[in-house]
Parts: sequence; structure tokens; C-alpha cells
Amino acid sequence: MSTEISTLGEFGLIKHLTEHIETINPETSYGIGDDCAVLNYSNEKDLLVTTDLLMEGVHFDLTYMPLKHLGYKAAMVNLSDIYAMGGMPKQITVSLALSKRFSVEDMEDFYAGLRLACDAHQVDIVGGDTTSSRTGLAISITAIGEVEKGKAIYRNGAKETDLICVTGDLGAAYMGFQLLEREKEVYYNQIETAKTDAERMAISQPDFSGREYLLERQMKPEARRDIILQLREAGIQPTSMMDISDGLSSELIHICTQSHCGCRIYEERIPIDYQTAVMAEEMNMNLTTAALNGGEDYELLFTVPIADHDKVEQLKDVKLIGHITKESLGCALITRDSAEFTLKAQGWEALKEK
Amino acid sequence: MSTEISTLGEFGLIKHLTEHIETINPETSYGIGDDCAVLNYSNEKDLLVTTDLLMEGVHFDLTYMPLKHLGYKAAMVNLSDIYAMGGMPKQITVSLALSKRFSVEDMEDFYAGLRLACDAHQVDIVGGDTTSSRTGLAISITAIGEVEKGKAIYRNGAKETDLICVTGDLGAAYMGFQLLEREKEVYYNQIETAKTDAERMAISQPDFSGREYLLERQMKPEARRDIILQLREAGIQPTSMMDISDGLSSELIHICTQSHCGCRIYEERIPIDYQTAVMAEEMNMNLTTAALNGGEDYELLFTVPIADHDKVEQLKDVKLIGHITKESLGCALITRDSAEFTLKAQGWEALKEK
Repeated sequence: MSTEISTLGEFGLIKHLTEHIETINPETSYGIGDDCAVLNYSNEKDLLVTTDLLMEGVHFDLTYMPLKHLGYKAAMVNLSDIYAMGGMPKQITVSLALSKRFSVEDMEDFYAGLRLACDAHQVDIVGGDTTSSRTGLAISITAIGEVEKGKAIYRNGAKETDLICVTGDLGAAYMGFQLLEREKEVYYNQIETAKTDAERMAISQPDFSGREYLLERQMKPEARRDIILQLREAGIQPTSMMDISDGLSSELIHICTQSHCGCRIYEERIPIDYQTAVMAEEMNMNLTTAALNGGEDYELLFTVPIADHDKVEQLKDVKLIGHITKESLGCALITRDSAEFTLKAQGWEALKEK
Repeated sequence: MSTEISTLGEFGLIKHLTEHIETINPETSYGIGDDCAVLNYSNEKDLLVTTDLLMEGVHFDLTYMPLKHLGYKAAMVNLSDIYAMGGMPKQITVSLALSKRFSVEDMEDFYAGLRLACDAHQVDIVGGDTTSSRTGLAISITAIGEVEKGKAIYRNGAKETDLICVTGDLGAAYMGFQLLEREKEVYYNQIETAKTDAERMAISQPDFSGREYLLERQMKPEARRDIILQLREAGIQPTSMMDISDGLSSELIHICTQSHCGCRIYEERIPIDYQTAVMAEEMNMNLTTAALNGGEDYELLFTVPIADHDKVEQLKDVKLIGHITKESLGCALITRDSAEFTLKAQGWEALKEK
């Protein structure tokens, strides 16, 4: 018997492998299934743990991703998962597997980015390991954080009539990725067709002016510590929350499935930056699709009781995009012309294969 | 500037990258430099965190390592690090990066081994993630455990006159590795030279009878939970401890360097199994070298005050192999013919390249 993993997909595989896993220790409050595991080691705080494995050629492309940025982003991706539970990150451990083509200076760059991210978020690096790799670079980071006892925000707490909020804007990281991939291709084509040294010397670096925001969103995402602090200050306890790493559609469906409810979001309310819109136009791509399915935004998606409406309106960089419905209504986007469009968990991987 | 990593070595690289890292959070008691980080989230317990990244072709060879065994071993390697601090493991998270050649059934086998190890050690799997890999299999496991407040056993607490103890026996995992590598080569040579289908069909599987223990030590190591329970029961608090993953020599030097002391161990006291000795003889390898530098034994190395001598003698599967000296005397092995032989941190990697 040999079943190809693609028949289940990545989400399906992990569900298949872990669905019958039960936990036995009283120190385990919540295991697999959310942004973090929640551990019960203290009477005042719950502990949050999350881990990520990033592989060269799958999660990052070193032809355009400088190692310093990669270190920064690798940390941010994990810190974002701690914030997505309403917690504050405190420590990370870092394991790297390196092939021979990396130098000591490369790794200094990577660590410089890592430390910049950790300093900005008051996080300690408490474990660092390097080992060999036969092929590319592999990065494994585990982040540990804390949240007040019983205050961790899961994906399964959304209730009918709750308001749906997102932070920042969506789709820019994805358009940044498209832009970088396009320019990479242009560059390699020029190299291939150049016949003389003079022609090769004349190949210019791409001009990214006016698109800096897209590159920044792809190469230097910022985990939303500021939002967690604002929510605490305003006394808002979201009923559900997660970070938008695989795209708004996919994450909304996660929340609705785990909360046993449906949702309506409004196309006109989805926050999109001007540069994202221009780039989508230029590339002849559907802007809403990029915002819904692009992913890698590392923004927060959360729901709050309708009673918190006025408080949420006061938050900086938070936008109300819709509301939670009963489960039977499903998950849908209401377009600008009032059509109803069923949300699909397309995710980033699916898009990438197109 | 481009400095090859080999000029520093793996230990040197990580030291170089992390030596100026300072920690700022009160929740961080101890960061990089021991088997685990020690975190301060509770008043009664200290939390222990350790992480490992295992890469195909570097840390394991799937030509002879069944995936179920690999899952078991990957868990054990991490649990061993928690025991090496005197703690009890409670949770692990698991991230896998898979290339397309793996099937759903392969991953079921891996998880079966993982769960077997976790069940035996009362550990919960609280995070599971799978992602794609362009090439081989990458496994990242983080283990979390606890130890009574202030009772974590570091590498830096050994004192002059302390007794040096090891558990189990040494060198068997390494001889198992040598045996498997030899048989793999024989097998591939037979395949290459076979000219007809009949000849190919006639190629026999290697006969490992009488060597089961060596294979078991290499492919199914057991982390020493029993030793931690014995030490607690006997009321012994070791002054230093670590697990023997890179070989006794290397680990003893770590303890002595970090504790600012030296040591004397006695060749005749190093515990070695009969099968290990037979195999070394057959392969014309120095038995003591295999025991000192082989690695992957996942036994515990620890020091206790001389006052605990009689208590330690009562422990099951623990052997006294020497004592701690003042730093100026260095680290040495006293051979059977009373010669003094300076210990070198040769480690497993160095041996492998021979």
C-alpha cells in the first residue's frame, strides 16, 4: 500500500496523522489544532509554544531573499503565532541545517536579522544549534510565550453576530512575491541571452521604486505585537483569533469550522494598499483573489462580540470586514455588486502551483 | 569576505554566532550552552526546552533505518536532553519536511514510532506540522519538560574529588552503525555485480544474529528516565550531568571545561557490552576508541560528591569510571597498563569522515 500524500494534501495529512492523538499530562491544556499549544505549568500564566520548519526552495528563495531578511522573517513568522493566541513571546530556539555553500559571514547575516527581530519584540534566543545539510538550508524555530491564565484566544470561540476584524492590509506580501518572481525570470532570461561580457555587464538590477511596500511586506513582515497591546489596553477579549499566513479565506474557514459557524465578509471592506492594487492591475490579476488567498501577510484576524463594536472602531489599523453567522449559512464574500461568493480555502500553496 | 564554516567547525560556529547573545526576560533562567534552556514561568518548577533538527543523509540513512524506528529515535534523542538536566519530559512538538517520494503510509509508520516513544515516557505530542521538502526528509522536534525549582543539573557544577559516573554501556550504537554501513556496502556491491535476474534474486539479506544488541542500540536507543527516577529515590543530586550523544570524551571535556576542572577516568572501568567488543575485534577497530568517541549512546554522564559514593554504588546500571581533578591536570584516560592518555573531543562527526 502506498498512498500519495497529495491525495490528502498537507492539511489533510497532518489531520490524518494527529487526529487520534490524546494528551495525558495535566500540564497540557491544548495540543494540536491552533496557532500554538497551550501548556499549564503555572497558576498565573498559560504557556504558549509554536514551531515552524522552513525549507529552502519551498518557503524561501535565496536568489532574492538576503539572509539577514530571512533571519528576521523566520523569527517573525513564529512570533506572529504567539500573538495570534493573544500572548507575548519571550523566547525562541533556533536550529539551522547548512550545506557547504554557506559561509560564516552568511550565518552572521542570518543571526543579525534574527536578533533584530528578537530585540524589537523583547524576545530571548535561548537555544541555537547548527548541523549539516546535504542540500539546501533548513530553519527550525520554536517560540515560547505567555498569556494570562485562561485568556488564550483560540480559533473555536467565534459566536453568531460576532464582528470580524483584520489588521493592516492584505495581499501585499503576495504581490511582492509575484513581483520578485517576475524580475527573477527577467534577470535569468537576460543572462541566458547575453552573448558577450559587455552585454552581461549591461544587465541592470530591477527597478523597484514605487513598489517598496510590496517588497517590505514579502521580505520584512512585522508581527502585530502592537495590536495585542491595544486590545489589552481597550479591555477587548476577542472570541477567536489567528494570524493570516495562508490567506484570509483559508483562515476564516478555519475559524468558522472550529467554531461551528458561518460568516459574511464584504469585498469593499477588505483593506488593500494602493501599491497592491496597482501591481495586481499591472499583472492582470484579480485583486480580491490576491487579498483573500495570497497569504504571508502575518496580520491578525479576530472576532469580537457585537457589544465591543464601538471599542473596536477606536483601534488603530484594525478594520471591521464582516460578521459571524449561523453555521448553515456557510462562509461567503459579498461582492461590491452584492453577489454572494462562497469562500474557498485555496491557500498559498495552491496559488503557487498555477 | 567568505570564511568556510569548516574553519570553525560546528561547535565553533554556534559558539561564534551566539556568544554575545544576552537575555533580557526574567522568564529566561539559562539560555544557550547546555542540553536544555531553563525557563522560569512558575514558582514551583523550572521549565526545560530543547530542540533538534535531523536531516536525511546526515543524521539518518533510510536505506537501513525503518521510518518507525526513525520516529522512535527522533523522539528519544530529545527526551534524553530533558533527562540530562535531571528533568521529566512532558510534551513534544514535531515538524516534518517531506519530499514527494514519501507516502501517507510512510508517515503513519513514522508517527507510530513517535507515539510508541511518547507513550513509554508519558509525553504528549502537542504540535505536529508537515511541509514540503525539495529533497530529503527533515525532522525537527522540540521537547518540553520540568524539574523541581532550582534542581536543574547543568554541565558546569562538577567539583574536584567528585566521582564520575556513566549509565549503561558505551560504543554499541557506534558499532551498530559500522555494521550497518558495512552490510549496506556489501549489498550494493552484490547488486552491482549481479548480471542476471537469477543472480539478483539470490542476493541475501545480511544475517545479524548475535549482533541484535548493536542494531538495537543504533536504531532504538532508550532515553534513561529510569536513572532520573533512581537518583531522585536515592536522594542524589548530581553536581553536573549531560547525555552522551557525541561520545564520552567529548562530553567529559564539555563538563570539565564548563566546570573549570580536569578529570581522570579508567579504561578498565568503561562499561562495554560483549557484542561491542566482538564487533570491534572483527572490524579491527580499537574498542576503547569506539567507546570514548563513538557517540549516539544516549546514556547519562554525571558527577556526584564523593560523600555519595555508597549511594551511587547501589544504583542499577550505573558505573563509577573516575573522578574530577583540579583544572591544571587536564582530562585524561588511565589505560590498563597505567599510561596516561589525554582525552580529545573527537566526536562522531570526525570519526564519520575517516
